[in-house]
Amino acid sequence: MSAGWFRRRFLPGGLLSAPGPSRPRASPVPYRRPRFLRGSGSGPGPADASRRPDARPVRSPARGRALPWNAGYAEIINAEKSEFNEDQASCGKLCIRRCEFGAEEDQEWLTLCPEEFLTGHYWALFDGHGGPAAAILAANTLHSCLRRQLEAVVEGMVAAQPPMHLSGHCICPSDPQFVEEKGIRAEDLVIGALESAFQECDEVIGRELEASGQVGGCTALVAVSLQGKLYVANAGDSRAILVRRDEVRPLSSEFTPETERQRIQQLAFVYPELLAGEFTRLEFPRRLKGDDLGQKVLFRDHHMSGWGYKCVEKSDLKYPLIHGQGRQVSEWPLPRIPLKLPPTESKAPKGCSLPLCALLVHLLGLSAVSSHLPCPQARLLGTLAVSRGLGDHQLRVLDTDIQLKPFLLSVPQVTVLDVDQLELQEEDVVVMATDGLWDVLSNEQVARLVRSFLPGNREDPHRFSELAKMLIHSTQGKDGSPTGEGQVSYDDVSVFVIPLHSHGQGSSGH
Amino acid sequence: MSAGWFRRRFLPGGLLSAPGPSRPRASPVPYRRPRFLRGSGSGPGPADASRRPDARPVRSPARGRALPWNAGYAEIINAEKSEFNEDQASCGKLCIRRCEFGAEEDQEWLTLCPEEFLTGHYWALFDGHGGPAAAILAANTLHSCLRRQLEAVVEGMVAAQPPMHLSGHCICPSDPQFVEEKGIRAEDLVIGALESAFQECDEVIGRELEASGQVGGCTALVAVSLQGKLYVANAGDSRAILVRRDEVRPLSSEFTPETERQRIQQLAFVYPELLAGEFTRLEFPRRLKGDDLGQKVLFRDHHMSGWGYKCVEKSDLKYPLIHGQGRQVSEWPLPRIPLKLPPTESKAPKGCSLPLCALLVHLLGLSAVSSHLPCPQARLLGTLAVSRGLGDHQLRVLDTDIQLKPFLLSVPQVTVLDVDQLELQEEDVVVMATDGLWDVLSNEQVARLVRSFLPGNREDPHRFSELAKMLIHSTQGKDGSPTGEGQVSYDDVSVFVIPLHSHGQGSSGH
Repeated sequence: MSAGWFRRRFLPGGLLSAPGPSRPRASPVPYRRPRFLRGSGSGPGPADASRRPDARPVRSPARGRALPWNAGYAEIINAEKSEFNEDQASCGKLCIRRCEFGAEEDQEWLTLCPEEFLTGHYWALFDGHGGPAAAILAANTLHSCLRRQLEAVVEGMVAAQPPMHLSGHCICPSDPQFVEEKGIRAEDLVIGALESAFQECDEVIGRELEASGQVGGCTALVAVSLQGKLYVANAGDSRAILVRRDEVRPLSSEFTPETERQRIQQLAFVYPELLAGEFTRLEFPRRLKGDDLGQKVLFRDHHMSGWGYKCVEKSDLKYPLIHGQGRQVSEWPLPRIPLKLPPTESKAPKGCSLPLCALLVHLLGLSAVSSHLPCPQARLLGTLAVSRGLGDHQLRVLDTDIQLKPFLLSVPQVTVLDVDQLELQEEDVVVMATDGLWDVLSNEQVARLVRSFLPGNREDPHRFSELAKMLIHSTQGKDGSPTGEGQVSYDDVSVFVIPLHSHGQGSSGH
Repeated sequence: MSAGWFRRRFLPGGLLSAPGPSRPRASPVPYRRPRFLRGSGSGPGPADASRRPDARPVRSPARGRALPWNAGYAEIINAEKSEFNEDQASCGKLCIRRCEFGAEEDQEWLTLCPEEFLTGHYWALFDGHGGPAAAILAANTLHSCLRRQLEAVVEGMVAAQPPMHLSGHCICPSDPQFVEEKGIRAEDLVIGALESAFQECDEVIGRELEASGQVGGCTALVAVSLQGKLYVANAGDSRAILVRRDEVRPLSSEFTPETERQRIQQLAFVYPELLAGEFTRLEFPRRLKGDDLGQKVLFRDHHMSGWGYKCVEKSDLKYPLIHGQGRQVSEWPLPRIPLKLPPTESKAPKGCSLPLCALLVHLLGLSAVSSHLPCPQARLLGTLAVSRGLGDHQLRVLDTDIQLKPFLLSVPQVTVLDVDQLELQEEDVVVMATDGLWDVLSNEQVARLVRSFLPGNREDPHRFSELAKMLIHSTQGKDGSPTGEGQVSYDDVSVFVIPLHSHGQGSSGH
């Protein structure tokens, strides 16, 4: 990615903002459920079951189909929010060649792994929006990108210390000292490879969706076990936690317009043209209206973590760059804002932004100004509830040319769990799930469910999938639900439960 | 600060980059030591004592001159690194008027405070570079900026919850709910006021230095007690810690080119013209040279927290945007790079950057490529070891027009200590000090010194200044120094010790 790329890609007059020559369209990405659900008794289509909240089926792998580390998995489709389940999942063995053989791709990763391969395991969840295509592409692609990125640095990963030169050739005798002083370790190469793999996958998705004329994006949450460590890479609002007998440890943070407010406002400050005069980058407690003009009201700008008061000017009445508060309101299904391809004929509205904003208010299903309904979920440019993820290359604010992509990052945050250093106990697990679970269950509630379920089910070889199913049932207001407050998730929900004991340790080289 | 301001201020062709009409020069900012040192037995000048490391005097307030909360203070000048002590300090009572009286400024803050004033206390340390002027201006000015910013929001601060409208007039009946949902509290207004005050002070310093033809910048570390809370605002590499019997808690983080690497690289990615073709924004373990061309070497870019390998191109041989590693090497005094006014006649070098870089290597006192000397302190554009602070408006990379200011932030990070919620014990203190102390003493070493000193000196009314003096002696290789490794600080060192017991609690309104 060269310097200046950003401007050419996103700013008016940039080389890439002109529409390219029309090419023959590729066939659309076909809808599917994860391969490891084959044989689990339900077909792939959206119409496989009733969609009433109390009748949607919870799906998990067929008995006898073991996932890596005997991990458990379960999923449920949303309550008619979208035609398809927009979540996707993927897992498998990760075989990293220590030299290039040019062997052909094996999509199922069932390659026999000889000794010269470095092996690990991989679990991934993708939560799509604007259609299922981006999440399906990510589930098909990200592991290959990661394998490629890891293979590019594997010689450095297996050395006692990553060498300054990948060749191992030492140009300057003090090179090891420089690397030592920077504190660069093998795990930093894995982190770098994960960061690069997410970006590469994002580019692939952009190309594929453009070619097939489809749209959409997805979040990505990935766990990778490698050389005795578990790497958790997250871009979006899914979440992974470690649950042990005496500990609940978050392994990821969520990236939403609220958690990334300052980064997003900063970009709008540096490049105001990205808002096309339609939005204000300032944050206020609520959308301002004419009566607020001239008043001193609470506000925050990009450089502030505190709040101040400012005198309201006319430009402050525009729709806010980030608007709303908190997570999805789970009492009733809120429609996602329809996504559309960039208009080819229509022009972006100019001048007064009223029509745009009125439309947004309508689409958000509320009038936040005139009466106090529950605050809508925080959204970027009135459109997107996550600030990191893959895809969304074509996403515009409805009826405008305002692009979402410059504000989105595809790069994940990576946390490292040094599994070899944990004194693992039999019921230590990592729970990974899309936001549908976390909207209605806290980390502590999930931990309580894990701890209450596992000890009584030690003999069941499918207990981790049973636990994943039980967690999903707990989001549906079923008997024994710990939420007890009518909190029901109408979103897609997907859950991996990864047991660490007897798998996580001493796994390097296996 | 309007959108587009950044570009007008810093990019080529911007309105403000043309030199303004020459104005009559104001008189230079006179050198001085903090006012509360008056009568402590030493004059204000730099030649007040021998500067040999073992003979520099440690200064503290005259006995009988009490600082707020009976805080202790001590300072020592550097070992001939600069003509003057570039550290400055300031403290006093903070009287926030609840309405504007138009009373004239009282520089010593000795105003009698009637009941309608909200009062607090203020301690501040400023570590100057490139001359003492910016730190002196900051010590003279920042408290006034803070008082002004607090007075602008005080009605919101004293309310049970900050109102949406400062007037208290409720335009929308649900406004309190919106404020509640955003979680906005009185302390957020104080944080916002501190953020704004630092920026205002930065602007004042820029104007004053330009008017007097002086240069320089400074870090700023401020502690403010207000309404039962202690706010610590930090921009730079000074540090504050809370020391209790069983706890050592950092109250600030340092802002250096290393800790802010991603922010700084990101700006250079978005605006490559800020580097004028002379620097590379990429980070490598060491400066690259011709022999590295074509090799795959370790590197990091703005979006990476991990490391990867890249094939070295010619542009990678440029001097790195951020170069060096860690803190000041304290074994011998490293000269600060001389600062200069922007060249009026000379042109920035073009094309090959060798002369510039050779000069920088010379100035840094090392040849990092040919042999492995201890790595130099990390510097921004080869010039500055801090990434936040006040001033530096005129600072350029030596012999070029490349400005440092666009990469610097004046906004502090603010942490809040809820003193009213602590079960305070008699020897609980906050230690604030400039980097000269922390270069040679760890938080734990300082805590051990505090805990060993205070219990035996309960009867001494000046024990907190004695403790501050003892801490400074411990940086000078004196008897009883805990460092024991020849670690001697040749930098300016300034220390406040703020006792919390019987002052920190129940202080609102006093």
